[in-house]
Amino acid sequence: MSENTSEFSNVSIVKAANVYFDGNVTSRTVKFADGSSKTLGIMLPGEYEFNTGAKELMEILSGDATIQLPGESSWQAVKGGESFEVAANSSFKIKANTVTDYCCSFIQ
Amino acid sequence: MSENTSEFSNVSIVKAANVYFDGNVTSRTVKFADGSSKTLGIMLPGEYEFNTGAKELMEILSGDATIQLPGESSWQAVKGGESFEVAANSSFKIKANTVTDYCCSFIQ
Repeated sequence: MSENTSEFSNVSIVKAANVYFDGNVTSRTVKFADGSSKTLGIMLPGEYEFNTGAKELMEILSGDATIQLPGESSWQAVKGGESFEVAANSSFKIKANTVTDYCCSFIQ
Repeated sequence: MSENTSEFSNVSIVKAANVYFDGNVTSRTVKFADGSSKTLGIMLPGEYEFNTGAKELMEILSGDATIQLPGESSWQAVKGGESFEVAANSSFKIKANTVTDYCCSFIQ
């Protein structure tokens, strides 16, 4: 048996969307059997700032964006297939240049 | 045990979003053990026309919209907590007046 990496299996999904920035960023929460959770989200083109609680792993599934990580003055490009981490209890900025599909894992 | 109706449990979710209308409508596909599937989606304010393959049950989770069903000349209001069905192999129009969160079930 091979794992199907295009899907998350044996999970629960919260029906109601998480809605930010007037719907320009939305996500759905996926809960795993081990108690961990991720969100699958979409950003429309625009610039956004997010606060973190837990440490986050942000995987860009598709799209083209630039990010400014906590404490950094410079911006770096990220695109589909790439990822970045954001420290707990901090904030980061992201400019989505295209519709950007992402998966955010909360790391305890 | 009571069913948690705010979540779908024991499902698979396709990671990649379905993106329509330049991202103004996006959804995620949820697959159930019985082989059925649903999409959980978000519409930003705007007017959209969708074609159906299978018959669809559209449940509005939150938001405020008007719909024009196949063969109808009039529009009717739908809002969070309401639903409507659309015949297979047809099309319908929907005007989202607010960010609209929905669940679409494909009925075989």
